[in-house]
Amino acid sequence: MNRLEPFETLRILGIDPGSRITGFGIIDAQGSRMRYVTSGCVRMQNNDALPERLKTIYEGIRDIVELHKPQVIVIEQVFMKINVNSALKLGQARGAAICAGVMQSLPVYEYTPTQIKQAIVGKGNAAKAQVQHMVVALLKLKGVPQADAADALACALCHNHTHQTLRHINKSASTSLVRVRGMRRGRLR
Amino acid sequence: MNRLEPFETLRILGIDPGSRITGFGIIDAQGSRMRYVTSGCVRMQNNDALPERLKTIYEGIRDIVELHKPQVIVIEQVFMKINVNSALKLGQARGAAICAGVMQSLPVYEYTPTQIKQAIVGKGNAAKAQVQHMVVALLKLKGVPQADAADALACALCHNHTHQTLRHINKSASTSLVRVRGMRRGRLR
Repeated sequence: MNRLEPFETLRILGIDPGSRITGFGIIDAQGSRMRYVTSGCVRMQNNDALPERLKTIYEGIRDIVELHKPQVIVIEQVFMKINVNSALKLGQARGAAICAGVMQSLPVYEYTPTQIKQAIVGKGNAAKAQVQHMVVALLKLKGVPQADAADALACALCHNHTHQTLRHINKSASTSLVRVRGMRRGRLR
Repeated sequence: MNRLEPFETLRILGIDPGSRITGFGIIDAQGSRMRYVTSGCVRMQNNDALPERLKTIYEGIRDIVELHKPQVIVIEQVFMKINVNSALKLGQARGAAICAGVMQSLPVYEYTPTQIKQAIVGKGNAAKAQVQHMVVALLKLKGVPQADAADALACALCHNHTHQTLRHINKSASTSLVRVRGMRRGRLR
């Protein structure tokens, strides 16, 4: 039995958290067929204090999850070339976003910027503009999404790509299974 | 009318967030009279992934707020001499803890380690052991709380001290009000 079973539709929510703007993007993936569902930004008020900002993120993501019912959340792994203050702010935003998903029992996955670029453009060192261009092309979008929403969609696309690749490896000869176990699967730890 | 009105009881929840252990401590304060209510730790499982850890913090703090109904949350401001990776982890834990409080409409305050030491021991450069010793003495505790729970109680005590000081300044001559406006009041931004 080496044949693949038909793909079920997987609804993926990508999130690009930030303490000012948190981008989100949802796609439906059925194997390599991908359909854009929605995308946008949760915007924080500039004069809001931190607790209100985190509340806005939490409520925003919670409402999106309740409305669109994704089956998985995908988030970009933090690029470590930021300073301590930015890391703390970003961490707080991520904490709020992840909480909103996990409180509704969704699994959360993360990928490095390199993994996302590799999956979307085919080059781990691709420019941000190339990633956005490919997001538009892959999802046949009529306009260019806002930058954070595009990044969130790229996360979702990356997960589907990786998910499929793993599925193919899993379904092929058993020797490949060793590779799968050794692979960095991106489940957020 | 320069006399002070009688103090109402303020129930303060101090939180010391961390990605492994999150300490909490609750006190009831009526002016300078303070009563220990409870304290303890939310402990994460070592083999839990990040989303589960954040869920544990969120649920832990949410349950404490629902059970003990504090009126304010106090949290220690982050000590900036940590590395980016630690700042990110701590930020995520703080995000989950703050979300749990703010989703139940509680105001959140923060104080620097120096402000806390100054309020509890009277010296901004006091040792951690001195702070813990004073927490035990001020709350007439029979045993020594776990370190993170003691830090959380110290946050709560610091807020009451500062709260009272501000109240006194507010109630005295109007020239002092200028000082109050100029002070760092610790409301978390």
